[in-house]
Amino acid sequence: MILDKQNKKRLIIDMDGVLADVYLQFIAMEEKESGSKINIQDLKGKEEYKAFPNGRKHVNSKGFFRNAPLMPDAVESLRRLNEQYEIYIVSAAMEFPGSLIEKHEWLAEHFPFIGWQQITFCGSKKIIKGEIMIDDHFKNLDNFEGQTILFTQPHNEGPDDRGHTRVTGWMEINKLLL
Amino acid sequence: MILDKQNKKRLIIDMDGVLADVYLQFIAMEEKESGSKINIQDLKGKEEYKAFPNGRKHVNSKGFFRNAPLMPDAVESLRRLNEQYEIYIVSAAMEFPGSLIEKHEWLAEHFPFIGWQQITFCGSKKIIKGEIMIDDHFKNLDNFEGQTILFTQPHNEGPDDRGHTRVTGWMEINKLLL
Repeated sequence: MILDKQNKKRLIIDMDGVLADVYLQFIAMEEKESGSKINIQDLKGKEEYKAFPNGRKHVNSKGFFRNAPLMPDAVESLRRLNEQYEIYIVSAAMEFPGSLIEKHEWLAEHFPFIGWQQITFCGSKKIIKGEIMIDDHFKNLDNFEGQTILFTQPHNEGPDDRGHTRVTGWMEINKLLL
Repeated sequence: MILDKQNKKRLIIDMDGVLADVYLQFIAMEEKESGSKINIQDLKGKEEYKAFPNGRKHVNSKGFFRNAPLMPDAVESLRRLNEQYEIYIVSAAMEFPGSLIEKHEWLAEHFPFIGWQQITFCGSKKIIKGEIMIDDHFKNLDNFEGQTILFTQPHNEGPDDRGHTRVTGWMEINKLLL
């Protein structure tokens, strides 16, 4: 399926928990802080800040976003999707002003094929429009008017997907969209 | 007209040329650079980067956005509008990554009643939805699906307002919206 530029569908993609593996970062920083390693299997259905006692401190600390590990297959998937879709990376970064530059640098390092026109740092995603949204937070998908893809992360695992299409990892997104 | 929270109209407000008086900043920096003062009256209909020969350099220089003067009546107008509308400040800041922190600090200083949830820094405003948009650039208003208010700045002065409602200054916006 190759669409011409005018007909490309607009695809809105989240950063934390979708492109950046923030759970690995939280677990590593909690271990450094407390000495004990949290098992990701124990975090299903728990909100992020309940799962990680020092989470708010770590998310505000220098380097949290700049050094976040990449989600597996994210770079190659985005490179291919970027040819077929009108892609926008939309991150709710405004709660942590220190993250603005870190996120910008992180994207420039790992996704150099994404232009500045394609990046948005917001407070709320309620004002974002597009045809498809990939996100790990219900609050963002529930307000979106187009197709919604729920990226599995421990905090969103549970019996109810609220009508969103659940995917586990980028290879499943590729099967859906490419 | 007092609307309850649920029924508030979503109002999207630009920063540069609407809240921040970037022309005054450009003129001051050009004068410092070249010694000659540009007359704002001579800039009608000229694109910003044609009006200011060193504009791109200045916009990328430290302090340009952090020290930008306020547009007259912007603070008091926003304070009142913020009670009656669901306000979002949306600035196309991504072209100048150095501006991200400066713009965030500038808003926090001058508009402390605007929460982080209400701020968006984007590359393109094509993905923004709302009921009303106030902006000084045709490219942003032309793509918007709601009511569009063109804030007069020298670069947008000309015979054709392209169907947008032109206002000169915040007092005119207040008459329209309050």
